[in-house]
Amino acid sequence: MDISNYSNSILPYIPFFYVIWSDDLLSTSEIDVVKTAIEEDNSLSNSDKQQLKSWLKKDSPPKNELVKSWQQLITNSNAKLIESEVYPLESFSQKVASFYCKNCTANESLQNIELHLGIQPNHYNHLFNVEVVHQAYSDRFSGSDIDAIVNAPFLQEINTFKEFLKNPVFKWDVVRDKSKARKIVLKQVQTLAAGGWGALAYPKAYGGTNNIESYASIFEQLMFVDGSLAIKFGVQFGLFGGSIQNLGRKYHHDNYLKETGETKLLGCFAMTETGHGSNVRGIKTTATYVHETQSLIIHTPGKNDNKEYIGNALDSKMASVFAQLIVGGKNKGVHAILVPLRNEKHELLPGIRIEDNGYKLGLNGVDNGKIWFNQVMVPVVNLLDKYGQIDDQGHYQSKIKNPNKRFFTMLGTLVGGRICVAKGALAGAKMSLTIAIKHALQRRQFNDSIKVQEDLLMDYPSHQLRLIPKVASSYVYHTVLQRAMHEYANSTEDKRRIETQVAGLKAIITWFATETIQECREACGGKGYLLENRIADLKNDTDIFTTFEGDNTVLLQLAAKGVLSDFKSELNAGGFVSVLKLIGGRFTDKLATINPAYSNKVDKAHLYNPKFHLHALDFRLRRLTDSAAMRIRGYIKKGIPSYQAFLKTQTHLLALGKAYSEVLAMKWFYEFTSKLDDGLYKDLLYQIGALHGLSVIRKDATWFLEHGYLSGTKSKAIRQRVERLSTELRPHINTLVDGFGIPQHSMTAPIAN
Amino acid sequence: MDISNYSNSILPYIPFFYVIWSDDLLSTSEIDVVKTAIEEDNSLSNSDKQQLKSWLKKDSPPKNELVKSWQQLITNSNAKLIESEVYPLESFSQKVASFYCKNCTANESLQNIELHLGIQPNHYNHLFNVEVVHQAYSDRFSGSDIDAIVNAPFLQEINTFKEFLKNPVFKWDVVRDKSKARKIVLKQVQTLAAGGWGALAYPKAYGGTNNIESYASIFEQLMFVDGSLAIKFGVQFGLFGGSIQNLGRKYHHDNYLKETGETKLLGCFAMTETGHGSNVRGIKTTATYVHETQSLIIHTPGKNDNKEYIGNALDSKMASVFAQLIVGGKNKGVHAILVPLRNEKHELLPGIRIEDNGYKLGLNGVDNGKIWFNQVMVPVVNLLDKYGQIDDQGHYQSKIKNPNKRFFTMLGTLVGGRICVAKGALAGAKMSLTIAIKHALQRRQFNDSIKVQEDLLMDYPSHQLRLIPKVASSYVYHTVLQRAMHEYANSTEDKRRIETQVAGLKAIITWFATETIQECREACGGKGYLLENRIADLKNDTDIFTTFEGDNTVLLQLAAKGVLSDFKSELNAGGFVSVLKLIGGRFTDKLATINPAYSNKVDKAHLYNPKFHLHALDFRLRRLTDSAAMRIRGYIKKGIPSYQAFLKTQTHLLALGKAYSEVLAMKWFYEFTSKLDDGLYKDLLYQIGALHGLSVIRKDATWFLEHGYLSGTKSKAIRQRVERLSTELRPHINTLVDGFGIPQHSMTAPIAN
Repeated sequence: MDISNYSNSILPYIPFFYVIWSDDLLSTSEIDVVKTAIEEDNSLSNSDKQQLKSWLKKDSPPKNELVKSWQQLITNSNAKLIESEVYPLESFSQKVASFYCKNCTANESLQNIELHLGIQPNHYNHLFNVEVVHQAYSDRFSGSDIDAIVNAPFLQEINTFKEFLKNPVFKWDVVRDKSKARKIVLKQVQTLAAGGWGALAYPKAYGGTNNIESYASIFEQLMFVDGSLAIKFGVQFGLFGGSIQNLGRKYHHDNYLKETGETKLLGCFAMTETGHGSNVRGIKTTATYVHETQSLIIHTPGKNDNKEYIGNALDSKMASVFAQLIVGGKNKGVHAILVPLRNEKHELLPGIRIEDNGYKLGLNGVDNGKIWFNQVMVPVVNLLDKYGQIDDQGHYQSKIKNPNKRFFTMLGTLVGGRICVAKGALAGAKMSLTIAIKHALQRRQFNDSIKVQEDLLMDYPSHQLRLIPKVASSYVYHTVLQRAMHEYANSTEDKRRIETQVAGLKAIITWFATETIQECREACGGKGYLLENRIADLKNDTDIFTTFEGDNTVLLQLAAKGVLSDFKSELNAGGFVSVLKLIGGRFTDKLATINPAYSNKVDKAHLYNPKFHLHALDFRLRRLTDSAAMRIRGYIKKGIPSYQAFLKTQTHLLALGKAYSEVLAMKWFYEFTSKLDDGLYKDLLYQIGALHGLSVIRKDATWFLEHGYLSGTKSKAIRQRVERLSTELRPHINTLVDGFGIPQHSMTAPIAN
Repeated sequence: MDISNYSNSILPYIPFFYVIWSDDLLSTSEIDVVKTAIEEDNSLSNSDKQQLKSWLKKDSPPKNELVKSWQQLITNSNAKLIESEVYPLESFSQKVASFYCKNCTANESLQNIELHLGIQPNHYNHLFNVEVVHQAYSDRFSGSDIDAIVNAPFLQEINTFKEFLKNPVFKWDVVRDKSKARKIVLKQVQTLAAGGWGALAYPKAYGGTNNIESYASIFEQLMFVDGSLAIKFGVQFGLFGGSIQNLGRKYHHDNYLKETGETKLLGCFAMTETGHGSNVRGIKTTATYVHETQSLIIHTPGKNDNKEYIGNALDSKMASVFAQLIVGGKNKGVHAILVPLRNEKHELLPGIRIEDNGYKLGLNGVDNGKIWFNQVMVPVVNLLDKYGQIDDQGHYQSKIKNPNKRFFTMLGTLVGGRICVAKGALAGAKMSLTIAIKHALQRRQFNDSIKVQEDLLMDYPSHQLRLIPKVASSYVYHTVLQRAMHEYANSTEDKRRIETQVAGLKAIITWFATETIQECREACGGKGYLLENRIADLKNDTDIFTTFEGDNTVLLQLAAKGVLSDFKSELNAGGFVSVLKLIGGRFTDKLATINPAYSNKVDKAHLYNPKFHLHALDFRLRRLTDSAAMRIRGYIKKGIPSYQAFLKTQTHLLALGKAYSEVLAMKWFYEFTSKLDDGLYKDLLYQIGALHGLSVIRKDATWFLEHGYLSGTKSKAIRQRVERLSTELRPHINTLVDGFGIPQHSMTAPIAN
C-alpha cells in the first residue's frame, strides 16, 4: 500500500476514519463533530481538509478497497493499542502516524473527536490486527459515588445497616431443611429487632424513627442476605406491625407496637383465603360482635375459607385477621382484628387450627401456613378500630360513611408492602446482575481466532445485549421506587392515586426482576445453576413476587381502571359502573397524528433525547386509553352488560395498565435525573435513561409500528441504538454494578469473586 | 321494544345477529357464509331476506340502538342457554323465537351458520343476561384419540411403559436432601434396567431393540415421574452407553454394553471441562499413548481443566472420558476412552479425584461432580476406536482423514442426547400446562357481577391467551422432535444437516419450555409455588436444559453458520473461513418484494392458511440469511478480520438461527398433519398449527412490520386471531391436555385433581 498518498498531517486521522467506516452507525450530528474538528485543526492544509471531508459523505462513503488499505496501513505500523490510556484511539493514532513519519508531533485535536463521538476501545479493539493491551473496565466512574447519588437521603442509614449485617448470624449458607432454615431466619429477625431495625417505621415512642422511607431503603439489603429473611422481616414488622400502627389506635400501639418491634410479640397478617386470593372484599371469615360479652367471634365458615399462605403462621402468637365485621346482624365490611393464636407454651388456643403450607419453590425459611378459626372469641377491644368503631351501646360508627372508601382506606396498609415487594424483587435482579457481570468479566470463551487470548464473555455483543439494558432498567426502577415511597409517605388522606401507581409499578418491576434473574442464570451457564452462586435462590425466592401482594394481572387491571376513571374510582371496587360513568365524555381531545418526518427521525440526538422517550410512551398511553374507552363504550351502547364489556377488553386493559406504569417510571426517573448537579454522573444517568427508554420502546415496537408512530427505519435504528448504548456502557459495567451497593460480605458467590 | 318489526321467520336469526355485531371480528368470508344460509333458507320471504342482508354490511353495520334492542328481546325471552347442546346457539335461538311465536317451528338452516362460523358458547355466553347452563369442556374430541394420533408408531410401547411406571418405586415425593434423593433415583434407574428399558436402543444381542426412536418416545414419560430420573437415565444409558455403542467396536460392546444396560456397570460421560464449557475441541485433558506399555495416560493438566458437572460421577465405576489423544507426540484430536474410576468397594482408583458439585437449582437427585485425572494409566484397548485406532506398531489410523470431520462424526453421539433434552423440556412444559389448565377449569375467580356463579379462571381472556397458544406449540414441537429423531436414526453417514437442525430445535424448544413453565407457575398463583403441585420442580429441573448439552446461544449460532454454508461447514468448527468461502456468490436470488395487497390481506381464510405461515417464516429466513451474508461480506471487504466480522454480526446470527429453526418446525408439523386422514382430528391439528404459526409470527411482528411484510392492519388482525383461536380451542382445552398422554398416576398435583 502506498502511503505517499497521504500527507503527514492526514496520517493520524486514518485510524479514526477506519473505525468510522468499518461500521455504519455514524449519524449526521456525529459527522458534524468530525467536520468541525477538521476545520479547526491548524495542522491541516486546505487540500488535507478537502481530502478528509471527501471521506465524510454518507451518500458516497469511502470505497471498500480504500477502507481495507487503511486497515493494512494500521496493521503494518505494529502500533500497540493500550485501552487504559486517557484517549486510547488518539494515542494509538499518533503511534501509527509516527511509524510512517518519525518527526511528526502529536495532534491533540483528535482528542476532541474521540471525546465527542463517544467511541471506546471495545468499539474498535477488534478491528485491528494489532496487539491490544486490554483493560477489563474503565475507572472513569466510581461505584460508591453512584451509590451515594441514587441513595442520597438514606445513605448513612444504609451504610450503618450494612455494618450491622456483618454479624455472622447473617452469613449465607445452603440450608435445605425447612425447620432448620426457619430457625435461622427467626434468629436473624430477632437479631434485627434487637438492633432496633424492626421498629424503624414506628413512632419514636415505640422504638422507631417514624420514617417509612428509611425502612424501605434498608429493606433491599435484607434480600442480599436471604429472601426468606426479607419476607419474614416484612411480615413481622411491616404487615403485622404495620396493621397495628395504621389501623389501630393508641390502645393498640401502647399494648403491642413496642413488643412487636422487639419481636417479643410475633405476629402474622391473615388476609388471603384459599378461595379468594385476589378478592379481599369477598373474604368469608366473619367477626361477629356479641354485645352481651363485649366480644367478637371469629369464624371460618367453609372448606376453602381458611387463611392461606400466611407468613409467620407457625411462629406467631397473634394474628391480625381480616374478616367481615358483623354488627347487629349487619355486615359492616372487612376489618382487621387482633386474634391471639397461641399461649406462652406455644400451644394453639382453642378453636384455632394451623397447618404448615409445606415446601415451596423458594422462601423455605418462611413459615407459611393455613389458619382456620372455629368460633374463636376475642374481646371487642381487639378490633383495630381507627377507621370503624363499635361504641358502648354496641353500634357501629365510622367517620368514613362510604363502605367502599372505608375498605380502601384500610387497605392502604398494603401499599408500603407492595413497594417493599417490588424493592425486594429489584434487589434480587441487582444481585443477580452483579454476579453474572462479575463472572462475565473473568470468564473467557473460545474464539478460534489467531488472537492469543480468548475473549471475555462480557465482550460478546449478545452478552452485552442480554445484561446491560437490564442494569440500566434497574437504576431507573430503583429511583422510581424511592419516589413511590416518598409519594406514599407524604401523600394526603386520599391515597388512591399513589395506590394505583404502586399497583402498576409493582407489576412491571416484579416481572422485570423475574426476567432479569432468568437471563442472569442462563448467562452464567452451569455455574449459575449451582446454589453456591446465589442466583438460583434469588430466582426461586422472588418468583412468587409476581403473584403475591396482588397478582400482577389483577394489579395491572386496577391501574387501567385508575387511568380510565382518572383515579376517582375505588381501587379493586369491581367498580365497573363508576368507571363507566367517567368514561362518558372525557376522551374528547383529538389524538395527534404523527408527522412522517417525526416517525422517520433517526438521528442520535433525537433518539437519545428524554423528550422522545416520554413522548413515545405517553402517545401509547393516550392511544390505549382512548381505544379502551371507545371499545367499552361501544359494547355498552349495544347492551352488553358492563362486567362482560370489561371482560372482553381484558387484554387491552392489561396493555393499558402496563403502558401507564412504564410512562410513570420513565417520567419519575427523568425528574430525578434532571435535579442532579451537572457533570459526568448526570450525563451517565441520562445515558442509562436512554438505554432503558429505548429498550422499553423496542420491546413494544410492534405496537408503535402498527400505530404509525415508528417507521420501519426508525424501529431498526432504535434496535441498533440499544446495542450501541450497551457497548458504550460496557467499559463502565463493573462500576455500574458496584453502584448497586451490594456489600462485599453479601457477595459470597464464588464465580463473582 | 316492538317486536312487531320482525316476521316470525326472522326472529330466530336475532340472537345470531346480536352475537355477530356485538363483536367486530366478522370477516368477508364469514359474511358470505351467513348470506348463503339466508339465500337458501326457504322459510324466509324475499323481504325477510332483504332485511337480514341489510344487517350484513361491514361498511354500515346495524346501529347501536338496534343491537341493544336485540339484546333486550333476547333477555326478555327468559330462554336458557345450555352449552352442552349440539348446536347451542341454534337451539337457544329457537327458544327465544318460540317465546314470541308459539307456533313457530325450528329452522335448521341456522345450524349451518353456527357450524361454519365456528362460534362457540364461550364466545357469546357472556353477552346475554340469561341463565346459562355451563359446560366446563366439550367432549367433541377424545384425549386418547389425540394421544394415539401424535404418538402413532410408538403407542403400544409407551403404554406398556406407563404400566411399568405404576411400580411404587416411581411414586413422587418431596425429597430435599440430596443423598436421599440420589439413592431414590439410583434405585429407579436400576428398576428400569431390570425391566429392560435401559438397553432399549442397544442391539438385540445386548438386550435391546436397536431402536433409538422407541427409546426417545418413552423418554418423556420419565420427566413426568421426576426430572432427575430422566437425566440420570439419559446419562447412564444414552450418553455413557451410547458412547460405547457408537464410538466403540465389538470388543467394547461385548465387554460393557449388556452390563451397562443392566446397570451392573454404572458409568458417566466426561466431556465438559470447567474452563471449556461450549468448546469441546478445546478441552485440555490428554490421553497420551505409551507404546511400551500399550497404554494411555489420562491427565488433567491445569486448574480449570477438570471435568465438570458430570452426571453419575459419584455412583459410577467407569467414565467415558473425552481427551486429546496424543500418539507419537502428535495431537490426533479429541477421542473417548473408557477409564475405570472406582474399584468394587467403590473406592476411587489411584490418580482420580472426584468432588460433588453440591446443591443445584434443580436435579438434586443427579450426582453431578468434578473429575481430575493425575497420570492415570489405562490399557490402549480402552480407546473407543471405531473412528480412529492405534495399530500394533503404535501408529494412529483412521478412515476419516480430515480431523475436523472425524471430530464431528464422533460428536454425532450428542445428537440423540440433544433431542432427548428437548423432549424432556417439552415434557415439563406439557405437564405444567396440564396442571395449570386442570386447575383453571376448577378454580373460580371473583367477578363482581350480578351473575350467581363466579367465572372459571379458564374463561378469562388473559388466561386463555397465556396458556392455550402454548398448548398448540407443544403439539407442534412434539411432532417435530419425533421427526427429528426419525431423521437422525435414518440419516446416512453425513449427519451434518440433521445435527445442525437439532441444535437449533433444541434451543427454541428448551426456551419455549422455560417460558411456558414460568407462565404456568404464575397462572396458578400461590398454589403453583407449592412443591406438592409439581410445577416448581419441573421449572427448576428443566431450567438448565437451555444451557447444557450445548448452550442455546452457541447452538443458534451453529444453526446460523449451517444456513450460511448450506450445511457444508463443520459444526462448531469455528470454521468462519469455510463459511465465508460459501457466502461468496450464493445469495444472488433477488428477494421478492411484498405486494401491498398481500401485506394487507386480513381475511380469516388467509390468516389460517398454512401457506401463509410458511411463507412468512420462510421470507424472514431468506431476508435474514441475505442480510447477514451481505453484512459479513461488507466487513471482510473492508479488511476486518473474519472472526471479528462474525462477532459484529452475532445478534444477527442468533436471529437467523432462530428463524431457521422456526420455519423448520412449522414445515415439519404441516408435513405431519397433511398425511393424516381427513376428518375432525386433522382439522383440529390444522387449527393448532394456525395458532402456533400466528403466535410465532406475532412474537416477531416488529421484524415483519419493519420489513414491510405485514401492514399495521394485518399485524393487528393477527393479534386478534391469536386471541380468537385461543377462544375457539377453549372448549377443547381439557381434551387437548389429556391428549398429552400424561398417566393419571403421574398427575399427583392436588390442584389438578
